[in-house]
Amino acid sequence: MRKKFLACVAALSVAGSVAAADRPVAPNGIALYSDYLSWKVIAPSYREDKGQIRIITGNDTAVAALRAGTKPLPDGSVLAKVAWKAEKHPSFPVASEPGAFVQVEFMVKDARKYKDTGGWGFARFVGNQLQPYGKDSSFVAECFGCHTPVAGNDYLFTKLVKVP
Amino acid sequence: MRKKFLACVAALSVAGSVAAADRPVAPNGIALYSDYLSWKVIAPSYREDKGQIRIITGNDTAVAALRAGTKPLPDGSVLAKVAWKAEKHPSFPVASEPGAFVQVEFMVKDARKYKDTGGWGFARFVGNQLQPYGKDSSFVAECFGCHTPVAGNDYLFTKLVKVP
Repeated sequence: MRKKFLACVAALSVAGSVAAADRPVAPNGIALYSDYLSWKVIAPSYREDKGQIRIITGNDTAVAALRAGTKPLPDGSVLAKVAWKAEKHPSFPVASEPGAFVQVEFMVKDARKYKDTGGWGFARFVGNQLQPYGKDSSFVAECFGCHTPVAGNDYLFTKLVKVP
Repeated sequence: MRKKFLACVAALSVAGSVAAADRPVAPNGIALYSDYLSWKVIAPSYREDKGQIRIITGNDTAVAALRAGTKPLPDGSVLAKVAWKAEKHPSFPVASEPGAFVQVEFMVKDARKYKDTGGWGFARFVGNQLQPYGKDSSFVAECFGCHTPVAGNDYLFTKLVKVP
């Protein structure tokens, strides 16, 4: 039985490695999380300057912490922010809906590993090719700089949506 | 063992009934689905006329059908559209985020039960009191009328978002 279990673990590890090898990787080593659209919703957002509509999702660790009001978020928390060009609905033009995919961005919490950037690792994958953003790992200075005004909220712009 | 199993079923049924009794019910008998924010994302949307930002989620039946491209959606499919007042982010005002909760709306597929309205049952619950919309069951004429222009898309305005 134990042998069978270990064989399964080995097979799964190999399968995992193959999948991981196909995923694009940011210059700081953060690989695309491919299942981010299956995570729970944290909030939608709309960027009028860029004409983009977005969804922020979170993995179970992140969403559980946000629901409990735990700040800073614990290690293992991952947030994804997905952006599409906002397009007027052809049958109902006062409503804008997602058009072309723009990018997906991740914030990955590891207080020790990313201690220089508020405990968060940043990554962005752009366009249909999911091109990793940044020439080298110094790109995170731009991400972190933008998030500094919300340092008091664990560097998060996004709040978990509330419903009654 | 069977006795224990039946006892559990009975206990769960009672618990379910109590919870259901607490949920508001639309004039056509559709009760609020309380777990809609745990469903998978179908899309965000933005209504510039109303200044609202929205998320559309779907239960597993609906999302599986949308992913597979199955139209019309099968019985048991449920979509939720949640709306909040869009508010400019205090630290980043070019971004709008959800403010006060406005309403949640449901479309429930049962081709036979709702055959007069395209196979869809409609419900809306408004404000923090989740007040059922409509004085009587004729309120669905308004919902259905608005969705008629998208009859060719199984009466759905929303399309499943695409990511690479």
